[in-house]
Amino acid sequence: MKPTNKRSWRYRLHEIIYEADTPMGKLFDVILLILILLSIVLVMLESVQGIDTKYHEILYIGEWIITIFFTFEYIARIITVKKPKAYIFSFYGIIDFLSTIPLYISFLFAGSSFLLSVRALRLLRVFRILKLARYVGEATKLRRALISSRAKILVFLFAVLVIAVIAGTLMYIIEGPENGFKSIPTSVYWCIVTLTTVGFGDIAPVTPLGQLLATVIMILGYGIIAVPTGIVSAEYTRSKDNDYVHVNTQSCRNCGAQRHRDDAKYCHKCGEELNPKSHIET
Amino acid sequence: MKPTNKRSWRYRLHEIIYEADTPMGKLFDVILLILILLSIVLVMLESVQGIDTKYHEILYIGEWIITIFFTFEYIARIITVKKPKAYIFSFYGIIDFLSTIPLYISFLFAGSSFLLSVRALRLLRVFRILKLARYVGEATKLRRALISSRAKILVFLFAVLVIAVIAGTLMYIIEGPENGFKSIPTSVYWCIVTLTTVGFGDIAPVTPLGQLLATVIMILGYGIIAVPTGIVSAEYTRSKDNDYVHVNTQSCRNCGAQRHRDDAKYCHKCGEELNPKSHIET
Amino acid sequence: MKPTNKRSWRYRLHEIIYEADTPMGKLFDVILLILILLSIVLVMLESVQGIDTKYHEILYIGEWIITIFFTFEYIARIITVKKPKAYIFSFYGIIDFLSTIPLYISFLFAGSSFLLSVRALRLLRVFRILKLARYVGEATKLRRALISSRAKILVFLFAVLVIAVIAGTLMYIIEGPENGFKSIPTSVYWCIVTLTTVGFGDIAPVTPLGQLLATVIMILGYGIIAVPTGIVSAEYTRSKDNDYVHVNTQSCRNCGAQRHRDDAKYCHKCGEELNPKSHIET
Amino acid sequence: MKPTNKRSWRYRLHEIIYEADTPMGKLFDVILLILILLSIVLVMLESVQGIDTKYHEILYIGEWIITIFFTFEYIARIITVKKPKAYIFSFYGIIDFLSTIPLYISFLFAGSSFLLSVRALRLLRVFRILKLARYVGEATKLRRALISSRAKILVFLFAVLVIAVIAGTLMYIIEGPENGFKSIPTSVYWCIVTLTTVGFGDIAPVTPLGQLLATVIMILGYGIIAVPTGIVSAEYTRSKDNDYVHVNTQSCRNCGAQRHRDDAKYCHKCGEELNPKSHIET
Repeated sequence: MKPTNKRSWRYRLHEIIYEADTPMGKLFDVILLILILLSIVLVMLESVQGIDTKYHEILYIGEWIITIFFTFEYIARIITVKKPKAYIFSFYGIIDFLSTIPLYISFLFAGSSFLLSVRALRLLRVFRILKLARYVGEATKLRRALISSRAKILVFLFAVLVIAVIAGTLMYIIEGPENGFKSIPTSVYWCIVTLTTVGFGDIAPVTPLGQLLATVIMILGYGIIAVPTGIVSAEYTRSKDNDYVHVNTQSCRNCGAQRHRDDAKYCHKCGEELNPKSHIET
Repeated sequence: MKPTNKRSWRYRLHEIIYEADTPMGKLFDVILLILILLSIVLVMLESVQGIDTKYHEILYIGEWIITIFFTFEYIARIITVKKPKAYIFSFYGIIDFLSTIPLYISFLFAGSSFLLSVRALRLLRVFRILKLARYVGEATKLRRALISSRAKILVFLFAVLVIAVIAGTLMYIIEGPENGFKSIPTSVYWCIVTLTTVGFGDIAPVTPLGQLLATVIMILGYGIIAVPTGIVSAEYTRSKDNDYVHVNTQSCRNCGAQRHRDDAKYCHKCGEELNPKSHIET
Repeated sequence: MKPTNKRSWRYRLHEIIYEADTPMGKLFDVILLILILLSIVLVMLESVQGIDTKYHEILYIGEWIITIFFTFEYIARIITVKKPKAYIFSFYGIIDFLSTIPLYISFLFAGSSFLLSVRALRLLRVFRILKLARYVGEATKLRRALISSRAKILVFLFAVLVIAVIAGTLMYIIEGPENGFKSIPTSVYWCIVTLTTVGFGDIAPVTPLGQLLATVIMILGYGIIAVPTGIVSAEYTRSKDNDYVHVNTQSCRNCGAQRHRDDAKYCHKCGEELNPKSHIET
Repeated sequence: MKPTNKRSWRYRLHEIIYEADTPMGKLFDVILLILILLSIVLVMLESVQGIDTKYHEILYIGEWIITIFFTFEYIARIITVKKPKAYIFSFYGIIDFLSTIPLYISFLFAGSSFLLSVRALRLLRVFRILKLARYVGEATKLRRALISSRAKILVFLFAVLVIAVIAGTLMYIIEGPENGFKSIPTSVYWCIVTLTTVGFGDIAPVTPLGQLLATVIMILGYGIIAVPTGIVSAEYTRSKDNDYVHVNTQSCRNCGAQRHRDDAKYCHKCGEELNPKSHIET
């Protein structure tokens, strides 16, 4: 039995894969990041017909190299981590798994290529790898702002959908299939295109009545956008308040420093005791 | 005479339909919600030509089942409620009625199908059924914010319409019917499409002068969107602040102090009683 | 000499035209408003070819009736007002004049019809006529907010134009006339269409490099819209502050009322003197 | 040796070119501004085919006049400034150089015309020339607001890109090349067009599933726009408040008080000296 030996071997591998403090760990992270980017670029290039027919074999080999690397990485992550199950069913664990298997199941089923899009999610590792604590902090704030205004956002989305269904049905009745509004689902789709001010123009109202209703929908959509913006603005303004304190115009008798905290008893610059009365009398 | 017996029968039905605390009440609510959703899906599917020709009879039977259920539900609601008139002319009462009748009047008139779009409004019952007090609260806040900024929004809409009419007339003169600007109403419609940044592209300026004016309209529309957003943002930011109260222009007869709380009875500066009428008269 | 008599005649006419307190004044205002709306509807209908060929004579007669009424109104306004010059060169005076003359000069020049668009501006009188003081107040606030952030808005517009000129030139070089980017001015126009997120789609990049640059422009435009919104939001949030005061948690010894103004000396509810120390000690 | 003489000659030229206080300096600035505008107009007109074929020679001569003036100006700026290197490698120095050379290198290479777009950047001189301190102030504020919310904006852009890559891949799989989604890069481009609510409409989903996904993307994009707006709004609202200072998480060794000013040297509560290193180490 040589548990320490084995543990030490797994321990070192764990450090390389999960940490980025050693030179080896950094190298691994950089290679991983490059391979993730490469895997996305490869998937993109394969989809461009001109490029695929010309360089099909190179792309196919590249795909295999990445898949093999991802496979080894995935196995190594499972082996070295203390609680493999926790990793496998974690957010990153599932993404890692789905990023690895597409090539394997392409032998079994054709058309499993939609899994390739999951690879883009691996890009999120960039935050971890580069230890961008600051950016993670911002992302956390953003997520918290979104979560705390979840109820507002759901009410808003529900309102958008009800408007789209009603207006879509009316547009279908007014314009009809002869003007491109083929069916109510298509009409509802067009309403959302219009409400969100995207406006593709593949379908557009032709009758005066349809154009009138479209005008109402557009102005509605133009106004509705103010709602989520107002919500997030208010959330953000409030969440910022934790990093700021109110200061007053009281000045220190000793060094003349101003803009002290409202409840300051000592000068933040020279440590002199502040005269609380002097402020109140002013 | 057995009023208690009868009242008890109506009472139990009332509890099933209007409340959601008993198992039967919950079951009824879930079935109702499913049928509302189904009724909307049915209307949508009927409008898709391929599906309608294939499954016309099934859809037609489904439509009848839903209509009969809605009819019974509508009658039951009228019978069990204490003040039937109040229900019939309430918001939900009218929606329930309009959701029920389309199939009946389709025997009398063709083309009454536009009433089917009303059914989407029944979805609003989801809030009631699921007792989503929290979401109703959010919706109320949203509605209050919109109501309190009603004057601003009307001024804004009026400005948008005046701009659209003026710019539309100019575009019609500049571009003319040969470039798709068939008439002034069409031009005004195009202006709103552009101002709201929807931009379908079914009509687009071709002449340099028209493109110049279009540029001005677009930048105007791009900037104008800031106005409703700013309004709602400010409303929301304010409504969150429980540390502020609204003050009015009433002035104290004794010391002349102004900016009292709206509900103030005594001057905050000298303690003199304030004359509530003096404010109303101003 | 009968100046009082004459003055009284002009005085009464002045009251009818400029004021809205007498029944005659109200009637005049309502008729004026209806005629302004009618004049705009007439101009619009004339531009619709199908309607114009059918009802040309009725429309032409209607146009003459409105023009004659506007002429008399314009003359009456000049006669009855104390300082005719001040009226003639005022904002409303010029609009009234330009709304009246198009039919007259159509005898002299063809194509003077662009003046008809000025009539839409007469709609602004609606605020005056209906004495909608509240809405005028909102409009004034809006105008003040726009004026006080004039410098910011100009810097913003200048930035948008410089970006559009640079990106437009680059798009012209990349895409070229063969893909619809006919000339640099057209390219700049397309850039503004894209920056403002209108996106007509009459011109769209085809080459990969062009699509890449378009992506950058779109994201830029998507982000830039935050700037005017942020400006107006901040302006509005501040301008609202004048109607609110900060309140604290101090409670009245006599009636227990809370949320007094920070500088309140007496309770706003019962007039009891507040103990300033009790607040500071808390 | 006549250094003073020569210095005086260079000194006077320096004053004309770099300052705007003397009549000659003002004249120079106005001429420069006109020539910059003219150079941009010339580049634009050359690109319009109808105009170029007709007035090619005039435009070509104009181009040469401007290039020669710019050349002399560039040389004069280098001669008269004290530290020529600092100027040459400054922002304005590089722009001045790139604005001057296109015509010269057009003898060497064809297709160097993309440098002409740099000339638009010379327009930024307008701020310097017109001494629009106020506008420069606003621009600085805007830039500072953007810089201070840099981390947030990068996180936001990254999120947009990841969403676009994932949704783009899915759209390519769903719609396929036969519906205009030629390749994944094109699909990603379409996703950004949709997310930013530009919506050209050159490519639009046709299948029901594609339209469903498009709906999700649109609503996502419609909601995401709230994020940068909220960020900038909060930044602006905050930057207006000179009554607030940023605080950090450093805690006092003596009394444990937290939330000190970023530049505090002494604790505001007990007057103990703060250890600046303790904060940096955390």
